[in-house]
Amino acid sequence: MEQLLHELAALIGPTHVLTDPADTEPHAVDWRGRYHGRPLAVALPGSTAEVAALVALCRDRGIAIVPQGGNTSTCGGATPDGSGRQLVVNLRRLRAVRRLDPDNNSLTVEAGLTLAEVQALAEGAGRLFPLSLASEGSCQIGGNLSTNAGGLAVLRYGTMRELTLGLEVVLPDGQVLDALRGLRKDTSGLDVKQLFIGAEGQLGLITAATLKLFPLPTARATAWVGVDSARTAIAWLAALQAAFGDRLTTFELISEVCQKLLDHHHPGQLPFVAPWALLIELSDSGETAALEERLVNWLSEQAMVDGVMAQSESERQRLWQLREALSETQKRDGPSIKHDIGVPTSMIPAFLEQCGQALKTAFPGVRIVAFGHAGDGNLHYNVSRTRPDPAALFDDEPAVNAIVYEWVDRFGGTLAAEHGVGQLKTPWLERYKDPAALALMRGIKQLLDPRGLMNPGKWLAP
Amino acid sequence: MEQLLHELAALIGPTHVLTDPADTEPHAVDWRGRYHGRPLAVALPGSTAEVAALVALCRDRGIAIVPQGGNTSTCGGATPDGSGRQLVVNLRRLRAVRRLDPDNNSLTVEAGLTLAEVQALAEGAGRLFPLSLASEGSCQIGGNLSTNAGGLAVLRYGTMRELTLGLEVVLPDGQVLDALRGLRKDTSGLDVKQLFIGAEGQLGLITAATLKLFPLPTARATAWVGVDSARTAIAWLAALQAAFGDRLTTFELISEVCQKLLDHHHPGQLPFVAPWALLIELSDSGETAALEERLVNWLSEQAMVDGVMAQSESERQRLWQLREALSETQKRDGPSIKHDIGVPTSMIPAFLEQCGQALKTAFPGVRIVAFGHAGDGNLHYNVSRTRPDPAALFDDEPAVNAIVYEWVDRFGGTLAAEHGVGQLKTPWLERYKDPAALALMRGIKQLLDPRGLMNPGKWLAP
Repeated sequence: MEQLLHELAALIGPTHVLTDPADTEPHAVDWRGRYHGRPLAVALPGSTAEVAALVALCRDRGIAIVPQGGNTSTCGGATPDGSGRQLVVNLRRLRAVRRLDPDNNSLTVEAGLTLAEVQALAEGAGRLFPLSLASEGSCQIGGNLSTNAGGLAVLRYGTMRELTLGLEVVLPDGQVLDALRGLRKDTSGLDVKQLFIGAEGQLGLITAATLKLFPLPTARATAWVGVDSARTAIAWLAALQAAFGDRLTTFELISEVCQKLLDHHHPGQLPFVAPWALLIELSDSGETAALEERLVNWLSEQAMVDGVMAQSESERQRLWQLREALSETQKRDGPSIKHDIGVPTSMIPAFLEQCGQALKTAFPGVRIVAFGHAGDGNLHYNVSRTRPDPAALFDDEPAVNAIVYEWVDRFGGTLAAEHGVGQLKTPWLERYKDPAALALMRGIKQLLDPRGLMNPGKWLAP
Repeated sequence: MEQLLHELAALIGPTHVLTDPADTEPHAVDWRGRYHGRPLAVALPGSTAEVAALVALCRDRGIAIVPQGGNTSTCGGATPDGSGRQLVVNLRRLRAVRRLDPDNNSLTVEAGLTLAEVQALAEGAGRLFPLSLASEGSCQIGGNLSTNAGGLAVLRYGTMRELTLGLEVVLPDGQVLDALRGLRKDTSGLDVKQLFIGAEGQLGLITAATLKLFPLPTARATAWVGVDSARTAIAWLAALQAAFGDRLTTFELISEVCQKLLDHHHPGQLPFVAPWALLIELSDSGETAALEERLVNWLSEQAMVDGVMAQSESERQRLWQLREALSETQKRDGPSIKHDIGVPTSMIPAFLEQCGQALKTAFPGVRIVAFGHAGDGNLHYNVSRTRPDPAALFDDEPAVNAIVYEWVDRFGGTLAAEHGVGQLKTPWLERYKDPAALALMRGIKQLLDPRGLMNPGKWLAP
């Protein structure tokens, strides 16, 4: 191993091969602190050529690679195992802006830029890069691509997959796949870049991408509304789309339990508590005042429990902060068994009723904290208080998951809507994924990485 | 072969195995009449189960399959060879509407419905299925998926790939891949369905799909405008997007040569002839009058050669008919060497200048008929009059293609934007595609179809 570290240092520079535990520790633990690994070292290559040379060296030496971006995976997707034999390759030094082309609505950047930096680059050119999520200040574009990240504006703009025009990937054999074209239409062969989006680094290292940009909205209207049921909420979704078309950008659903948690931990912040709350945002070209007026008029015709419109940018920020405070508020309230599920939006009310009932039957007194991106069917569905002793919560995790994922599957849903599979959900993927799809995934892994050196121990491992 | 035909008849019914040349001939020739094949027979299975049984039988007997939908490929992608040993499998009997779910904005249909039928189903539920192209009355959804079809509204809604939530595919070994979920977010494993979109039937037969629906626009504004240059046209594209955001649905560019052709063959129809013409359409929720007023106001502030706004639905239809008449008008004017290219929209003006200049240098007197979906970078770029004797035009095809594709490549473009590769462009794909991408495509073909029985003789053939 000493020899390998010397060779690595010769390739990418000795200061870019971290071996001191104080330096490697932040790269050895996942964001939630659930997985603790011990890497051989952390390599910080500075260019695609260095990544390719490093991968070729590791292939020759049989060294496994764990690709890492901002290390914000919630499923342990970027954490090495405890063997001390896996090399973490962190891409934060790949920071070139290769090309900003506003007239093509495209931006080509390297993998190490943070999502917030990419948003800022787009905005500087009068354009929008619409991917938006809680960790945007630290997550990196390479990680967003590798997990097919979602977030708050998928309803209107799609996930990272739909926001990607081109990719550059270092394959497990050290070859560089150049699929970096900035084209809206391209039927010249299989769209092989799709394989690497959402592969969580198991098929190669994404080093650069050409991303789609959009016109920058100039008007926004934001409301926090209370409705009587999830069924009403989903009826609103269709009605809002009919009335406002693509302007509907965000449609977040927050349960009463969540609102009470917010009210408890942030007293005086919440405008009201309702059976269900919605955070609705419209965006458009043109003037904010006109858009707000249209939303006010529309809301005045609806049956609702209560509602407030943001009257200024600071009020808008305050409503968004309530939504964004949900994760941290929950954390303060104690541990929970977390799920990142998706169902067809039309199925949300029935899923909430029937899965909730099944959990209550199995665990009387259970608490369900449900909130999320109802506009795209993605709910964060977190379970606690399965028994009086909170310390024993995680003993019930397999039984809770079995109920939740069974109902997700019955409603045609997914057990991993936007966080990926990582190490956390591998057994469930094997249980619920179509067998032909699973076999094809494994075949592709075998084709690209026959020695299993790319992010081993995750869900594509043989 | 007799034995196989008997077995096929037993599987799918004797009336659904066509062998009489009068019945098979329409399936043996491509839409442009460039490729003439001779199939063993034409099979018309009626369900996914029948397709799977048929594929398994052909695999056991070593019989090659040519999948076919509406047979509107412009590249010979659905035409058998002349050996008399390939079985055409036409999916027009797979016509079930599996599920229409307006509250999820999704529609699950089998592969044999025409695009127009799918559009009508969506509209009947108050939704839009936005894919729109010239052959929509006869092309089938399975073919649209297999070619990743594009057309007139990609600027706003994306290609068939972006309009697809789920797929069902019969794999070359007869297994059915079930990836039919109607989810906006799904990170549960590799998105294997992406492989089959745009594969032109070389990796299996698509039997059903879950498609994205959108709110149905209630307002439209349509204008035909003349501008002084392609550079002005592309500047308008960004300005229109800044002013109207997602409302900009169509942005078609038509050269002066095209306008003169229209004027010659359809006298009195064209409002004017300008250096370049644009067909612009906005669509939105709300009222048509308000949208038209905004477009009129915007246009009144621009420098333009001339312009007309459609004042009624019949005037709108008339403008669209001019655009749609371009292919047929060109045909009446004699043969041409056709290209379906794409470049970044920002590169359109420079491409037109430089490629045009290179062609004129090589072929003085050449005529270039350029028009297309400038909003997404896709141009139909057709070349004729390379020499005085029009009968010798196709002798120049290799030299013309070499010039056109070289310039396309220099501008980061594609030689197949929306028509696929088929039989027509295989050598060019091999020349210009990234070698690592090409090797990966071939590896995937080998993985899924090791005996090469799915649509052989096209671009993935070993």
